[in-house]
Amino acid sequence: MPKRVKQPAADNVRLRFRVFCGKDIALGPGKAQLLKLVREKGSIRQAAIQMKMSYMRAWGLIRTMNHCFREPLVESVRGGSLHGGAKLTSTGISVLKLYEQMEKESMTATEKTRRELAALLNRDTR
Amino acid sequence: MPKRVKQPAADNVRLRFRVFCGKDIALGPGKAQLLKLVREKGSIRQAAIQMKMSYMRAWGLIRTMNHCFREPLVESVRGGSLHGGAKLTSTGISVLKLYEQMEKESMTATEKTRRELAALLNRDTR
Repeated sequence: MPKRVKQPAADNVRLRFRVFCGKDIALGPGKAQLLKLVREKGSIRQAAIQMKMSYMRAWGLIRTMNHCFREPLVESVRGGSLHGGAKLTSTGISVLKLYEQMEKESMTATEKTRRELAALLNRDTR
Repeated sequence: MPKRVKQPAADNVRLRFRVFCGKDIALGPGKAQLLKLVREKGSIRQAAIQMKMSYMRAWGLIRTMNHCFREPLVESVRGGSLHGGAKLTSTGISVLKLYEQMEKESMTATEKTRRELAALLNRDTR
């Protein structure tokens, strides 16, 4: 019965939150993932490697986030260049926590509806 | 006090649901909008014009939806070509309703968190 091995139907429905500041995206799934990795690895360079992006790209995303929020989300741990170590500021920790909370709240609130929707999908393609 | 005229802070946070069928997107904001317009206008052509896309593009999106769900979401009203009139099937009506319900549930469940997140945005950019 190979069909039973497939992922639960509600996994067919995915959501994405984007926080805008003017025309820029202050925060979305990619930037949230980058924040998580900086928190975990204490390094923008290591976070960039993990996400298969260049250091310059990661730094550009962080610069946008730092600019969009009231206070920077990421800071250097050695006072100097962010090339060394980096960590989330208290604002960075709060912002990431709120983003993750928002995702969880949404997934919980929509669980029944997501299942109903997924149940209408063609069995052979879902 | 021009800053007070700006949109409420929580509007800075937008969400998008996508329903996947394999690698295809069965339903997302664009396809949901197309379904709404077919429901409203009774015509794929008119819906396409409204969305500033070609008839062929609109028809391609509908073909994907019709294939991804157990039953077609859009059908011809004259039995012949969809170039004539078109309407949502009962499955189409259900799917669109569930999609809209999912968006509302999510927005309601995350309202407080969205406001808290938006409050951390830089006042000059949000």
